[in-house]
Amino acid sequence: MPRYKIIIEYEGTDFVGWQRQQNGTSIQSSIEEALKKLSNENITLYGAGRTDAGVHAKGQVAHFEIMKEIPLDNIRDGLNQYLRKLPIAILDSEIVDQNFNARFSAKLRKYQYKIINRRSPLTIEKKYYWGVFKKLDIRNMKESANFFVGKYDFNAFRSIDCQSRSTLKTIKECNIEEINNNIYINVSAKSFLHSQVRIMVGTIVEVGKGKIEPKEIKEIIKSKDRKRAGPTAPAHGLYLMNVEY
Amino acid sequence: MPRYKIIIEYEGTDFVGWQRQQNGTSIQSSIEEALKKLSNENITLYGAGRTDAGVHAKGQVAHFEIMKEIPLDNIRDGLNQYLRKLPIAILDSEIVDQNFNARFSAKLRKYQYKIINRRSPLTIEKKYYWGVFKKLDIRNMKESANFFVGKYDFNAFRSIDCQSRSTLKTIKECNIEEINNNIYINVSAKSFLHSQVRIMVGTIVEVGKGKIEPKEIKEIIKSKDRKRAGPTAPAHGLYLMNVEY
Repeated sequence: MPRYKIIIEYEGTDFVGWQRQQNGTSIQSSIEEALKKLSNENITLYGAGRTDAGVHAKGQVAHFEIMKEIPLDNIRDGLNQYLRKLPIAILDSEIVDQNFNARFSAKLRKYQYKIINRRSPLTIEKKYYWGVFKKLDIRNMKESANFFVGKYDFNAFRSIDCQSRSTLKTIKECNIEEINNNIYINVSAKSFLHSQVRIMVGTIVEVGKGKIEPKEIKEIIKSKDRKRAGPTAPAHGLYLMNVEY
Repeated sequence: MPRYKIIIEYEGTDFVGWQRQQNGTSIQSSIEEALKKLSNENITLYGAGRTDAGVHAKGQVAHFEIMKEIPLDNIRDGLNQYLRKLPIAILDSEIVDQNFNARFSAKLRKYQYKIINRRSPLTIEKKYYWGVFKKLDIRNMKESANFFVGKYDFNAFRSIDCQSRSTLKTIKECNIEEINNNIYINVSAKSFLHSQVRIMVGTIVEVGKGKIEPKEIKEIIKSKDRKRAGPTAPAHGLYLMNVEY
């Protein structure tokens, strides 16, 4: 059976998240329905990252198998046709070998968190950026970001719903770009704990507000205590940018 | 009476445009209502650019007068408080002298038009970019853009609703930036004809599709014939970026 890899973009606002759930429409189930219309088969879609409700993606990756082979352009254009009423688009499709697994073969997952730091409320970017009104100290935020890079027990930076057995994760990148009042926090790792990026961002913003000293990040990690870290940043500022294999 | 200048950002999607109208909510009337709540006076707001329905602004400028003086921070924060249910935000406020007129004192109006050029439909950017599916030739578009710069009779580039007596306009800037599949067309002038930027963009996109040769722009301008120019690009890709005085 041919195995396909697809690259997916979506606006997470009105979904319960990537993963199929009882209480609403998920991105996974929406694409599975489109796949069924395209192929007349019941197909399971396996995603690289199970993004939470409200989180967006510019480059989610998933794989699936179909009995009969379908030309690649028809996969992309056909799925987009069936998905046209939803804010989900297939950007690319590719045939991969049987060893490829969107979730387990991933080497690096890259996220970006977007903030606008200004006193006025957001308008155009309201659903796409976290609006932070208090003036943030970017230099301190950049200093604090460096302390996340490396292999640590990130128990202080996971949601109480997190079911990971191991809390040891290796952050490959955590850097901050500032363009006018826009702040972009880029975080990448092979894998993350549940809500890890959003709790890291919430903590970095506490540093920006002067509530936490940059070097305290080391102690917070060491404490393994969720209560020492900052709040979980809102979902709508977070983007799964791409997944490397 | 003190005269105030304000800088305004808005998402144009659900408005009938900047200007007060019978058939729906305008940005002008929304801010005038907020001004009335703030000051208990009936105030007329004068805008720099009368953006059409659906057009966004990152830096619209307007002026108004109030009998009693209100501290500048209260102007901004008070208006934002009364506007909080609408996608309109006051970014800044300033006291100006009696000669200042948002419309007539303007020296340069800068617009940006945003396009995403790709085969897949848009998701996150659907209401904020024009999605053009056919692959565009950027080099030809850039060449064509140069022909707009200068003082010309732009009768071929105005909507049939345009009421300007003179069709002579001076385009100061018309350039194109490309970042991945994102195309930004920057156009600035002291003033424009009705829909001029959108018709210019629609024509540049026809060049990108190979339907018009870059140098034909000269002839189209010379013809003064609206039918020779391209279609009017959709409103939702257009942003009034700022106004210089």
